[in-house]
Amino acid sequence: MSSIPVVKHHANPIIRVSDVRPSAPELKVDCVFNPAATAYRDQVVLLVRVAESPRDNDPLRPSVVYLVGDELVVEALDRPELEARGWDFSDSRSVRAPGPKGYLVAKYLTSISHLRLARSTDGVHFEVDDEPFIAPTGEYESWGCEDPRITLVGDRYMINYSSVSPRGICTTLVSTTDFESVERHGVMFAPENRNVGIFSEKVHGMYYAVNRPAPQMFGEPAIWLAESPNLVHWGNQRFLMGTSDSGWESGRVGAAFPPIRTAEGWLFVYHAADPDNRYCLGAMLLDSDRPWLIKAKLAEPILEPTEPYETDGFFSNVVFSCGAVVTGDTLHIYYGVADTEIALADLSVGVLVAALLAESR
Amino acid sequence: MSSIPVVKHHANPIIRVSDVRPSAPELKVDCVFNPAATAYRDQVVLLVRVAESPRDNDPLRPSVVYLVGDELVVEALDRPELEARGWDFSDSRSVRAPGPKGYLVAKYLTSISHLRLARSTDGVHFEVDDEPFIAPTGEYESWGCEDPRITLVGDRYMINYSSVSPRGICTTLVSTTDFESVERHGVMFAPENRNVGIFSEKVHGMYYAVNRPAPQMFGEPAIWLAESPNLVHWGNQRFLMGTSDSGWESGRVGAAFPPIRTAEGWLFVYHAADPDNRYCLGAMLLDSDRPWLIKAKLAEPILEPTEPYETDGFFSNVVFSCGAVVTGDTLHIYYGVADTEIALADLSVGVLVAALLAESR
Repeated sequence: MSSIPVVKHHANPIIRVSDVRPSAPELKVDCVFNPAATAYRDQVVLLVRVAESPRDNDPLRPSVVYLVGDELVVEALDRPELEARGWDFSDSRSVRAPGPKGYLVAKYLTSISHLRLARSTDGVHFEVDDEPFIAPTGEYESWGCEDPRITLVGDRYMINYSSVSPRGICTTLVSTTDFESVERHGVMFAPENRNVGIFSEKVHGMYYAVNRPAPQMFGEPAIWLAESPNLVHWGNQRFLMGTSDSGWESGRVGAAFPPIRTAEGWLFVYHAADPDNRYCLGAMLLDSDRPWLIKAKLAEPILEPTEPYETDGFFSNVVFSCGAVVTGDTLHIYYGVADTEIALADLSVGVLVAALLAESR
Repeated sequence: MSSIPVVKHHANPIIRVSDVRPSAPELKVDCVFNPAATAYRDQVVLLVRVAESPRDNDPLRPSVVYLVGDELVVEALDRPELEARGWDFSDSRSVRAPGPKGYLVAKYLTSISHLRLARSTDGVHFEVDDEPFIAPTGEYESWGCEDPRITLVGDRYMINYSSVSPRGICTTLVSTTDFESVERHGVMFAPENRNVGIFSEKVHGMYYAVNRPAPQMFGEPAIWLAESPNLVHWGNQRFLMGTSDSGWESGRVGAAFPPIRTAEGWLFVYHAADPDNRYCLGAMLLDSDRPWLIKAKLAEPILEPTEPYETDGFFSNVVFSCGAVVTGDTLHIYYGVADTEIALADLSVGVLVAALLAESR
């Protein structure tokens, strides 16, 4: 653990499953987590991921949930019969079947996520909307919408999130100016790519976005940096950072929230998991003018799962952030805990950047 | 097989390994294949893929080849010792080792490819340059450059190809106006994405490109369509076509050469493999105004490996095209055969489009 003082809020988790109403009578809310965050007017707005599963669920006939068109389907599977045909029910998140190519492929997910707004005037006490702000729609989202990020660019809030379907996991781009209506900009990155963080302003004429493609044949999922003249069309991808050979960031890495501009460079917080799927947050500083250059990086995580609400849950030992808000010198990190609920941790931007600059010396 | 008459040239293969000089004294040419093709001045220009491997190769100490920076390295491996540590030498194309995540990952390739120009005045007899036109360079190409495509857009030839490295397989974009100097435009699509075909003109204000992302977690490699205002930055990706459940296109699909504009729509020829890796070419017609719509598709391949030069080679039973040239009504398809040499097949655009229109009725 790094020496950066981090204050986890005493009221954590600040948003709980019990604060969220199901979006449909046949569903129950399993998890509310991984929120995007932004300041909007005099409020903090979170765009939270709500994962729901069928309310009635018989272990012998477990229910799965998906969309056909925009129609929600809840289907009970005959587990003994399907297991006899080689289907695999061992993962709590998906049901897999032997595919035509010989290996197990996901056939169904056990829950489906949508994105919902939560608003607060103090950044701690949130009112969660009863209706989805972004509900899954169309062929790329039949298994749901997950893990959004928000970046304010000019007067427009750019929102990206993971669209999940049998086609793969891709990144969809939408935007809003009022958190009421949404303009859609299509699939930003084809499968498999997620954990996208758009920079808040151009650098020498180009916008930038960190993204995390996951290749099939060679290579590991890694963080890349794309550029764009217009926020919709992206190119000139550059490798930024992969997993380490061992330790806390040897399993997975990907953006947390969008990089934050500071006088010393772009503060980029990312998530990292070890091979046991213990997720932490790390921090690096990208060069102000050439954001594809890592100016400094902390060797140790800045946030780790230590509290019971972080170490026990639907998917234990996870702190996973998609959103943060800066007020003065304080970075307010909103983060999913154990893939179950939402917590808040504060730290000093000045102290964090100073620690990064000390590393770069 | 479809009923489209196809004439495979009697002189096939029209470019052979013996026509190509090695690019370095320590290498031998194994294969010359998968050419991009275009008309340039009064010539047909092919950009051929040349795969080379170390000239001296002891089966007990097989040599691998890669770049460090722009420096070619040939390294002999101690096969018995590495096999005792779990390394796998069974694939003729790569050497794999147990990775930190538990499964075998490619550590080395046994050959490295670069791209070389070949020119012809009659489209049949080609003179192959002695020097690479595009040699691998930089961190994304330490394992080579493969499978180029050329599209003439205005007066500029846009060239894309697969960059291969331990980072994954991504698509690099360059361009030329004279086939002498090359302008680089960076990585067009992050890993894993290849088999990219750029359309030759805008459709209602946007350029388009077919591409073939290959996701890690969910989904199969599939053909998608991206749009661009400027040929360099791409977005609004749409799923176009995946593999079938069975038959000749159930293993792999991807673009052959860039789509060709006809009065009836964009003629799009693609490659498809079955689970035994037998590669054929198929054809579809994309809507003129909305190229993300498949207007018609032939149920059977238009080109299959039948001749000895197609059925036997480094990787047998493969016809794989990255380039074609149209003269009058004739589509001249240049294609790699058995991943070894280059052949030519001609067919009538009018007959092919008529067959496609018959399917769409």
